[in-house]
Amino acid sequence: MRNIIGAKTNFRSVNTYANRGMNLEADIEASNIFYLNNDIAVVYKKPTPITIAKVNYPSRSQAVIREAFFKTPSTTDYNGIYKGKYIDFDAKEVNSKTSFPLQNVHEHQLKHLRAIYKHGGIGFLIIRFIPINKTFFLSIEKIDKFIKENSRKSIPIDYFLEEGHLIVDKYNPRVDYISIINKYYFGGSK
Amino acid sequence: MRNIIGAKTNFRSVNTYANRGMNLEADIEASNIFYLNNDIAVVYKKPTPITIAKVNYPSRSQAVIREAFFKTPSTTDYNGIYKGKYIDFDAKEVNSKTSFPLQNVHEHQLKHLRAIYKHGGIGFLIIRFIPINKTFFLSIEKIDKFIKENSRKSIPIDYFLEEGHLIVDKYNPRVDYISIINKYYFGGSK
Repeated sequence: MRNIIGAKTNFRSVNTYANRGMNLEADIEASNIFYLNNDIAVVYKKPTPITIAKVNYPSRSQAVIREAFFKTPSTTDYNGIYKGKYIDFDAKEVNSKTSFPLQNVHEHQLKHLRAIYKHGGIGFLIIRFIPINKTFFLSIEKIDKFIKENSRKSIPIDYFLEEGHLIVDKYNPRVDYISIINKYYFGGSK
Repeated sequence: MRNIIGAKTNFRSVNTYANRGMNLEADIEASNIFYLNNDIAVVYKKPTPITIAKVNYPSRSQAVIREAFFKTPSTTDYNGIYKGKYIDFDAKEVNSKTSFPLQNVHEHQLKHLRAIYKHGGIGFLIIRFIPINKTFFLSIEKIDKFIKENSRKSIPIDYFLEEGHLIVDKYNPRVDYISIINKYYFGGSK
């Protein structure tokens, strides 16, 4: 990340928690650029929401934020359009080989994805199991099915294999979630 | 706007430029909450994009941004879903009674709205003429039609009356742009 004077900053690497998900995030970012440049889909990551407390104006044209705080996002990180359809998702990385702890997803994110589904959109999570480097697509319907049928607080990887879709590693786009949507929501038509 | 310790901040009011559009923005925000609470549509404003240069961690749980800069957004401010359809727009207020200067819309915003239209979404602007308190819906197709057929750098209000749609003031939702979409894109069906 570069600030406006071009100095490289890496504030995220300071904080281990904030650093989680950066690789998957970078892969999705690269994929979204691929989709955009190849006119396949238009998907963007939303900016990180912050609350601004202090702003200075050292010059007429420039504002410098001097005090701000990270806010809890009310929605997911990504949304966009594919073949006219609204798509909406969040990306999560976990250090487990065997299961995805549901505490990684905020309740307001699930609520948001349910609303998207209800309104006819495609809502899902992209989840990467870091130690085995496997990335899955799991729809909100299937997440809710799991929550309804299980008392477990984490979703085992078997459930991803059965009810989710493995997103096979590629060079470009790196995380080809659109191919999953195309196959399972549009019958694989080009 | 309140920061996390509850102190009211009004950094936006410091800067006249940043202040433009705040009333329309508040009206749209209230409308979006109405749509969400009444399960009509799911539309959010994207957070303001910033580049963060310095972050402090006074405690384990809290991060304070100490230096950050506003970035030019790559897209529009609002997007969401209505009846399964992807919708995407920006809101602009102008002080003119007679015309809307096209310089109020960044080229990258037009480009983004064109991409949305091309992919089957509904892309538009909500434009308020402050002195006459009239708010219009104008689709990207009609904006492009104007640009193609005219050399003028501003769109006269007559064009809004002919090719756009007046969004009639209401108590709630205050800026009922969904009723326009429902009427003109879904044939007025409930």
